[in-house]
Amino acid sequence: MKALTLFILIVPAIALADPADILGFDSETSEVQRRVEAHLDGSIDPQEMDDWLRHLSREPHHAGSAAGKENAEFIAELLKSWGYQVEIAEYQVLLPTPKTREVELVAPGHYSASLTEDSVEGDPSTSRREHLLPPYNAFSIDGEVEGELVFVNYGIPEDYELLERHGIDVRGKIAIAKYGKSWRGIKPKLAGEKGAIGTIIYSDPADDGYGAGDVYPKGPYKHESGVQRGSVMDMPTYPGDVLTPGRGATGTAKRLDRADAPTITKIPVLPMSHRDALPLLAAMDGEVVPRDWRGGLPITYHLGPGPARVRMKVEFDWNMITAYNVIARLEGSSYPDEWVIRGNHHDGWNHGAADPLSGLVVMLAEAKAVAALARDGSRPLRTMIYAAWDAEEPGLIGSTEWAEHHADDLKKNTVAYLNTDGTSRGFLFIGGSHVLERFFNQIMEEVDDPRSGLSLKDRRQAADRVLPAHVELREDAKNRSDIRIYPMGSGSDYTPFLQHLGIASANLSFGGEGPGGSYHTLYDTYEHFSTWRDPGQVYGATLAKVTGRAALRLANAPRLPFEFKGFADNISSYVTQLQKLSDELRAKTDETNQLIGDGSYSAALSPYRTLGPPRVEAAVPHFNFAPLLNALARLQSAANEFDTATEQQGTGSEEMNRLLFSVERLMTRDQGLEGRPWYKHHIYAPGFYTGYGVKTIPGVREAIEQRKYEMVETQIQLAAEVLDGVSERIRLLTSKLGSP
Amino acid sequence: MKALTLFILIVPAIALADPADILGFDSETSEVQRRVEAHLDGSIDPQEMDDWLRHLSREPHHAGSAAGKENAEFIAELLKSWGYQVEIAEYQVLLPTPKTREVELVAPGHYSASLTEDSVEGDPSTSRREHLLPPYNAFSIDGEVEGELVFVNYGIPEDYELLERHGIDVRGKIAIAKYGKSWRGIKPKLAGEKGAIGTIIYSDPADDGYGAGDVYPKGPYKHESGVQRGSVMDMPTYPGDVLTPGRGATGTAKRLDRADAPTITKIPVLPMSHRDALPLLAAMDGEVVPRDWRGGLPITYHLGPGPARVRMKVEFDWNMITAYNVIARLEGSSYPDEWVIRGNHHDGWNHGAADPLSGLVVMLAEAKAVAALARDGSRPLRTMIYAAWDAEEPGLIGSTEWAEHHADDLKKNTVAYLNTDGTSRGFLFIGGSHVLERFFNQIMEEVDDPRSGLSLKDRRQAADRVLPAHVELREDAKNRSDIRIYPMGSGSDYTPFLQHLGIASANLSFGGEGPGGSYHTLYDTYEHFSTWRDPGQVYGATLAKVTGRAALRLANAPRLPFEFKGFADNISSYVTQLQKLSDELRAKTDETNQLIGDGSYSAALSPYRTLGPPRVEAAVPHFNFAPLLNALARLQSAANEFDTATEQQGTGSEEMNRLLFSVERLMTRDQGLEGRPWYKHHIYAPGFYTGYGVKTIPGVREAIEQRKYEMVETQIQLAAEVLDGVSERIRLLTSKLGSP
Repeated sequence: MKALTLFILIVPAIALADPADILGFDSETSEVQRRVEAHLDGSIDPQEMDDWLRHLSREPHHAGSAAGKENAEFIAELLKSWGYQVEIAEYQVLLPTPKTREVELVAPGHYSASLTEDSVEGDPSTSRREHLLPPYNAFSIDGEVEGELVFVNYGIPEDYELLERHGIDVRGKIAIAKYGKSWRGIKPKLAGEKGAIGTIIYSDPADDGYGAGDVYPKGPYKHESGVQRGSVMDMPTYPGDVLTPGRGATGTAKRLDRADAPTITKIPVLPMSHRDALPLLAAMDGEVVPRDWRGGLPITYHLGPGPARVRMKVEFDWNMITAYNVIARLEGSSYPDEWVIRGNHHDGWNHGAADPLSGLVVMLAEAKAVAALARDGSRPLRTMIYAAWDAEEPGLIGSTEWAEHHADDLKKNTVAYLNTDGTSRGFLFIGGSHVLERFFNQIMEEVDDPRSGLSLKDRRQAADRVLPAHVELREDAKNRSDIRIYPMGSGSDYTPFLQHLGIASANLSFGGEGPGGSYHTLYDTYEHFSTWRDPGQVYGATLAKVTGRAALRLANAPRLPFEFKGFADNISSYVTQLQKLSDELRAKTDETNQLIGDGSYSAALSPYRTLGPPRVEAAVPHFNFAPLLNALARLQSAANEFDTATEQQGTGSEEMNRLLFSVERLMTRDQGLEGRPWYKHHIYAPGFYTGYGVKTIPGVREAIEQRKYEMVETQIQLAAEVLDGVSERIRLLTSKLGSP
Repeated sequence: MKALTLFILIVPAIALADPADILGFDSETSEVQRRVEAHLDGSIDPQEMDDWLRHLSREPHHAGSAAGKENAEFIAELLKSWGYQVEIAEYQVLLPTPKTREVELVAPGHYSASLTEDSVEGDPSTSRREHLLPPYNAFSIDGEVEGELVFVNYGIPEDYELLERHGIDVRGKIAIAKYGKSWRGIKPKLAGEKGAIGTIIYSDPADDGYGAGDVYPKGPYKHESGVQRGSVMDMPTYPGDVLTPGRGATGTAKRLDRADAPTITKIPVLPMSHRDALPLLAAMDGEVVPRDWRGGLPITYHLGPGPARVRMKVEFDWNMITAYNVIARLEGSSYPDEWVIRGNHHDGWNHGAADPLSGLVVMLAEAKAVAALARDGSRPLRTMIYAAWDAEEPGLIGSTEWAEHHADDLKKNTVAYLNTDGTSRGFLFIGGSHVLERFFNQIMEEVDDPRSGLSLKDRRQAADRVLPAHVELREDAKNRSDIRIYPMGSGSDYTPFLQHLGIASANLSFGGEGPGGSYHTLYDTYEHFSTWRDPGQVYGATLAKVTGRAALRLANAPRLPFEFKGFADNISSYVTQLQKLSDELRAKTDETNQLIGDGSYSAALSPYRTLGPPRVEAAVPHFNFAPLLNALARLQSAANEFDTATEQQGTGSEEMNRLLFSVERLMTRDQGLEGRPWYKHHIYAPGFYTGYGVKTIPGVREAIEQRKYEMVETQIQLAAEVLDGVSERIRLLTSKLGSP
């Protein structure tokens, strides 16, 4: 390959920004960067990605497994061979391995749940079962319990409100919940809070199985024996090693006693297939479930309690294992102390072809291309760090420990963190810090969808305009020319970077046209992936072009492409939502209390059924949103001024860039969120009772949602202060642009 | 019983209406009437109703059966014994009886549908199977066809639009449709129009079976072998005997050739249970159905076509049978030529305990009480006619033939027609002519719910305010002090009176707390009814109080209780709906055409699935609604003037009452509706493609819905003329009130 022209590193004079330029680049550096990106695209080899995927998914490679370690070494060797400085950063973390898993119906009748998944014809990987982790939920406590079943639907707060209206209490009972609607860890957490003694989580075929589509191997959906594994660690409190919150789990780190670890569940929990759940559910009786609680099994679903009585027993080996993070570094040619970090985990539940390897091979293709660019004379100006995390599945452990371990340096030097994880085909979805919204929109305009030839942005906008599955994006697609990047809750390795350290982050994947039910099952194999998800790595290769552009633009931009109008605009919509949320909660509460008080509920409800009126709730006061509205107005004005200034002045400086990339840090507070100090970010957090689902401006939002009225105005004040800190920094940046 | 004071028939001087008075009565006559009603209530005996129910449902008693004739005679004898002049009015009508019913899956694999229902333990009636009609659809054409299956969801127009987007054509195929969403006859009608060669209709367990609740006999819902029988005659074209449209089917009536009868289906059709449907649906393949088409069977549903290939054969004995209508008459003491007609059919599919006998015993209790009042000196002023119709199930045949036969007299003399049919427990639902809305609201205020002691109106309003099932009534419950009576489509014997003759009609039933899946199956037995629907006739007795009051108030009111403000108010809401309908259809059409034209659909739709863009539709023009709006304004003003006049002047006169009750005739036009001249009413009609579902101002509404744009303004003009005719009459009435 011909060597590329070297970058012109500093543009000496004022250059007017051209809309055709790359955000953060002027015309000249844009041209150079586009040549770099052409080489990036040329370096990506779908066949090689496919080969890596096949190799890395050859056998189960969960954290603590031999294959997991081999994969880490394989990845390290690849990265080393391309020219990276590579280390395998090891952490000693507590990881339970299942020893006993038993669920049996003891009355009426008897049924022993198999708790195993079938091998299927046509997918030889499903017969390679050595070292296979059986279905279980990591960080369930040990225990043996016996009790009547109560069907708790998805096991989220509103489900318990309805059970309460039926006079059903889960105290002393075993809650059986469907997977879905919330992150799985919420289900045992809430069941435990309500007094249940155990939790069973199963995949209902209406949501995830034959109801959704043809099942594996005829189609991609969940086999009747398929079980979704997964962590139930209380990640909304803190993720990572349960014994070392806030500290890297190095050999010498101070550790909690296991008995004191707050993120292990309080009650035992096991997941199961719908094949195993059927005899249990069929043995239940009591009130028939409400219409929208029904699942897809060929039975009438009942709330219980009982008469189905179940004994469950779960025991683990509570071993310390070593998590192997592969950390590959390519020193920046100009700004070695400014780091662009790119990560994807390498551990899987079992073969893990889709999750995480489909994303990992994207990162590897990108890393290889970046290394080739460096060898050919286009070494990134800033330092690139590629990280293949271990132990993400049990609770974002590898990334969290590394982020905690290197917190000070990371906060000081990191420009941004870019994450991928499992990916498929269809439409590009990008979540992340809103300061990167304009940046990613430009990339989506410049990379084409591999099938239609349309830009990724055009195809995504078309989907947002017409597809039923995109209905929540419809309004934005009608009213905006850009695509909003969604605010992030949790569910992958960006969480420690974004929400603990305050590093601007993003998460990217394709989806919508490669659905299925292999998630965290035996069936997440190479064969499944390459039949149903992204045969030929067509979209994987496209994703590498996107993430590669993002990484290289962040690494090379003369002025970092952070932007605040989009941020302010999103904050404005969140503030509006919060006001609406409190108004609607107030109106709904008043209306419901009125209908309870005037006897409408007791008059209307059927005397032949058990459903009673809802509980009277305290009236929702009016809150003083003025501090937040005033802070928002200041933010909008600061953002507009910065925008005008950057249109005049495209270049950056090292000082300015450092001020830019650390803006995200100002969205955090050292004290963290109320009741969960590990989460520092005050704009984005996973919901305390939703888990993966994001809560924006979480202090205010959760205080309203949880009806902690007395906390709302304090939280409004804190959020306003956070925004004012951001505005002040933006004004400082504008003043520096004014006097270059 | 002590004899009641005789009515004071004519109040000689002007009496101011008192809100405590009964509508149409002054203070004095109200007091008398209330004493009458107290005796009515005292005469109703739930135990006797229960005995009748048990006797009449002892064995299958469909039209043409021996038990059907016996039941007619039993009812006639009862009525005669109470003092009615009774005749059994006989009509000779074509009624097919099933001879051959075969459905078999011929490939892949083989399955012969049983097409029979199981007897169940705990309900001995289900073992009394002599003379049992097997599951079939009446007025299916004979035929034997073989073809691939296509799954057409509910088989309504929008379902075919979606199939078309998938490139699926039913020509030469057999359509398999779920029961529900439309009247069943629409399914073969539409399938036939689309070119299908046969139709299978089955009850999906998600809608009607274990998905809905515990199945019989554990609970009230549909047994796995249960099949909904029912007519598929094209009743939206005309109901009644297929050979004598518009004429009474007397022995000498002119008849069509069967081959020319337009209301027999064009393709063979059979109903089946979900147990029989399962092997057929499981053998299908092709595209997976959309999310909202999925049913409750434990399979993945596919659209087809095929590979499932089915042979079906249906043959009938096309016999003439005699329909026996029991007509009982109690001559009015003052106005024998003013008739209040009260009807309920007596034929059932099989045992028919809920449908129709639960309503029939209500009518009998009422008729007995009215006769007792007459014997005790309180004979109704107007003539009461109690009618027990035969052959309602195959197509409203008995009532239609009688109404057609006596059309001229009925139009001249009938004050109103009050219908009941199957009833259950819960909330009172009243449909009917809006001129009776205020009348029925007053009755609902005065009769108490038997369990709560609240008035029927208060309990129903509470339900409308809080129950999810009443969500469509929520707005009215929040904003209005009265309860709207719903506009009627079709589905029971009011149709010939209301929509063919223009007689103000109503239909009354309790429901909402006695649901189940026995409708038109073997399981509609005394045991089922008295366990799950209305044990002890508690609500049946209450319904008799309601219908008895309605009948006696109509029979005795010095001034008939018709009222026009409520009518005008309802018309106003329909006119608003029509404008909104056309605006929304225009906006939706423009938007869809735009999204097709700009390529959004083709860009967004999955290349891995068969769904294509929707069809481009002609733009919806703006219609001139002014004639209808002006007619509405005149109607509102006339109604207000009448209302004011009646507040001053509570009495009536024979001339005035005749002008009052014939107002409904002015809502008809002799030419009938476009394409279906039998339907004369221009305010209410069953939908041509919904069947039971009402279309208000049907000429205009269906022209818009069916995109017959060129017809819309003609229909607006016709509707305006109809309303103007009503307004003119109302003004005449007001002028007569002004000069008594």
